[in-house]
Amino acid sequence: MSFAHRHLLGIEQLSPDEIVTLLDLADDYAELNRRADKHGDALAGLTQINMFFENSTRTQASFELAGKRLGADVMNMSMQTSSVKKGETLIDTAMTLNAMHPDLLVVRHPASGAVDLLAQKVNCAVLNAGDGRHEHPTQALLDALTIRRAKGRLHRLSVAICGDIAHSRVARSNLLLLNKMESRIRLIGPPTLMPAGVGALGVEVFEDMAEGLRDVDVVMMLRLQKERMDGGFIPSEREYFYRYGLDAEKLAMAKPDAIVMHPGPMNRGVEIDGTIADDINRSVIQDQVEMGVAVRMAAMDLLARNLRERTAA
Amino acid sequence: MSFAHRHLLGIEQLSPDEIVTLLDLADDYAELNRRADKHGDALAGLTQINMFFENSTRTQASFELAGKRLGADVMNMSMQTSSVKKGETLIDTAMTLNAMHPDLLVVRHPASGAVDLLAQKVNCAVLNAGDGRHEHPTQALLDALTIRRAKGRLHRLSVAICGDIAHSRVARSNLLLLNKMESRIRLIGPPTLMPAGVGALGVEVFEDMAEGLRDVDVVMMLRLQKERMDGGFIPSEREYFYRYGLDAEKLAMAKPDAIVMHPGPMNRGVEIDGTIADDINRSVIQDQVEMGVAVRMAAMDLLARNLRERTAA
Amino acid sequence: MSFAHRHLLGIEQLSPDEIVTLLDLADDYAELNRRADKHGDALAGLTQINMFFENSTRTQASFELAGKRLGADVMNMSMQTSSVKKGETLIDTAMTLNAMHPDLLVVRHPASGAVDLLAQKVNCAVLNAGDGRHEHPTQALLDALTIRRAKGRLHRLSVAICGDIAHSRVARSNLLLLNKMESRIRLIGPPTLMPAGVGALGVEVFEDMAEGLRDVDVVMMLRLQKERMDGGFIPSEREYFYRYGLDAEKLAMAKPDAIVMHPGPMNRGVEIDGTIADDINRSVIQDQVEMGVAVRMAAMDLLARNLRERTAA
Repeated sequence: MSFAHRHLLGIEQLSPDEIVTLLDLADDYAELNRRADKHGDALAGLTQINMFFENSTRTQASFELAGKRLGADVMNMSMQTSSVKKGETLIDTAMTLNAMHPDLLVVRHPASGAVDLLAQKVNCAVLNAGDGRHEHPTQALLDALTIRRAKGRLHRLSVAICGDIAHSRVARSNLLLLNKMESRIRLIGPPTLMPAGVGALGVEVFEDMAEGLRDVDVVMMLRLQKERMDGGFIPSEREYFYRYGLDAEKLAMAKPDAIVMHPGPMNRGVEIDGTIADDINRSVIQDQVEMGVAVRMAAMDLLARNLRERTAA
Repeated sequence: MSFAHRHLLGIEQLSPDEIVTLLDLADDYAELNRRADKHGDALAGLTQINMFFENSTRTQASFELAGKRLGADVMNMSMQTSSVKKGETLIDTAMTLNAMHPDLLVVRHPASGAVDLLAQKVNCAVLNAGDGRHEHPTQALLDALTIRRAKGRLHRLSVAICGDIAHSRVARSNLLLLNKMESRIRLIGPPTLMPAGVGALGVEVFEDMAEGLRDVDVVMMLRLQKERMDGGFIPSEREYFYRYGLDAEKLAMAKPDAIVMHPGPMNRGVEIDGTIADDINRSVIQDQVEMGVAVRMAAMDLLARNLRERTAA
Repeated sequence: MSFAHRHLLGIEQLSPDEIVTLLDLADDYAELNRRADKHGDALAGLTQINMFFENSTRTQASFELAGKRLGADVMNMSMQTSSVKKGETLIDTAMTLNAMHPDLLVVRHPASGAVDLLAQKVNCAVLNAGDGRHEHPTQALLDALTIRRAKGRLHRLSVAICGDIAHSRVARSNLLLLNKMESRIRLIGPPTLMPAGVGALGVEVFEDMAEGLRDVDVVMMLRLQKERMDGGFIPSEREYFYRYGLDAEKLAMAKPDAIVMHPGPMNRGVEIDGTIADDINRSVIQDQVEMGVAVRMAAMDLLARNLRERTAA
């Protein structure tokens, strides 16, 4: 089986084969999660620490459930109320945790690159649960699994990513993944929320949403990341919805069987019309959450196998 | 065995037989909890999520211990710091959790009826851990178990509930339960803290506490719910204690073997004299806490059995 | 085996034999923790509650991992957001928890003596995780284990404890332990941070750090406990570092193989120069964290054995 990594830091490091390996295993875990008895032992005996320097109830819960269902000893550390406040540096915090011998360290941090830096300092497997505007690999993987289950494939799809591209690690990781899997990506959003030089990435860029959605298979909406907009243009919510919110009229431009995605939590009436979000024929938003747990189980399982081999060697 | 429910939303839905079934099982768990080795496996393989939209260290701890002791994978979600703050609605939050496939969802919410609403949207078993002024079924059940262990029965008792009746879901659930079990209930409190139309419930209402306590078997004190009093009459603590605080003189009106209860946390010197709270011949306040864990173990065990049958069918 | 206590409240109650028993067992657990499969069952079936009235991410994490790795059902209670705020007294809180039948209760409290008081009220084993300026026994034990592993012994060593002695329960517990194990202790710090009458404890006191460090085997730095300095002299950080911060020049006074310790979290550039903290030939700061988990596993294991014997008897 092909998955030769010590950490899961980003989509960038993964080969298409590795992505497929992970998604196949996640498919199995998705079935397990639907059973009443859903406890396995792939991580039994291991210690998982969730270290969130940024609040994220949803992502942390997903990783916590994933670890507990696979039998790990799971500990959450709320880093907002921790030693960090007493003046300790990120590296000291990491070294301290490392000395407690975790096997899996799940980290979210507001600074791009902080998780990579941390991974160089510790002995355990590190999973990036989102760092700044850089990567959010498990989000891209759960999106990919959701798309694959709905569309039967990941290649030769036309996928529109809409909204606040500039501040979005979700967009960045998805773009990397879909590129590797040979799908075509369109980025839709106002120029102020589009990163500079994005044209060089081999994507098509659209300012007009209706035009951008024409004949796509997948409509991936993003959250307005107000908390990460420092100083720049902040549109009014009403104006934003008018131009970039997904409603029935705009969605009609996409293929008739196009699916609708959102990483959550949603701002109904801002990024997306509530009726569309709830339309079980189009929206796969709940599937994304469901696949999130499965993908995280698969990722930790694969990393744990490599860890055990390293330790045994 | 008689317990045919999918959820535990309130006492209102339970038959006397079902109440007895649950209390009998809780009696067994109370014995288990007194042993050093107190870990069982009735919930092994299942996922329990505690979702508290209102802080309650005590109730949450009781549910958490109950689940862990029965082998569930337990996750706490502090909803004060969650997506709710990012603008997500209660239903979206519920649907998101539901997609993670919990088996048992324990919910406390400040709005009456919120837990019932949520239960209609999810696939798992929902336990109401208190919703607004509506119900708090596990509190009534633990009170009933405590009374039954002290008095040997639940029928033909005279039970006084004293204090802030109007704001109390504890009073409401207890009233429903004791009515079903054919005990007589007296409500004692100032008219300002008495709900309108309460006389129609087949209870006796007293403004004078000494009179209300005459010859009762059980004295159930309530917490002053200052946090739920919006705008209405707030008595001074000294005045309140003088008229409605339980002291030796007032307690002397009850039967000589009357027991004293309080759902906690107590305001000593406001609702109750400290000496009485600590009198091990009268006070069963610690027993209530002890029975709380046992009752929650029983409730989750019964719901899990139904869940497993549903899944197998 | 020699360890006859019901609680672990302080170093004061332990005999040298008991200290050795605990450290020997902790040595075994330190090896277990380095394995990938690090889950044992010494505490299986038992309930551990961590009850921190003072924030301490690091110590709480250490106890939590220790309990989970030994198979206990572990529950954290953040007492800052709990019933304590609703006016409940410490003893009521303790009695409430006691009624939930924990087997191991780990308590940190800002008031000296609070943990001893609590231990008198409950049936379970209580572990002091730090009370006011009084004791922090597991810290002294992990420091002792770290020293013993580095130096091969605990007797006839010369140990300097430097910094804010007056506010430090760490200093107090270490002093008690090292005295029992027949090492010589030097206390170094400004007179304002030195407790009155400390000379009577059989220690040497130094105001000049270079002089105090001369030929010591162990340099134990303390954290500046600004949060516990009420009204007294607070030095500027720059001035403090100049006189009492550990740098290469001052460390040169100690033995060439002297080890450097710090209980963390460190204020780099205040108590200690960053280069020395990171020097793997001198600093055993990460070892202290590692031994922390092992020592807590050993302490809970020994107390659980006594608990089981008591229950069986």
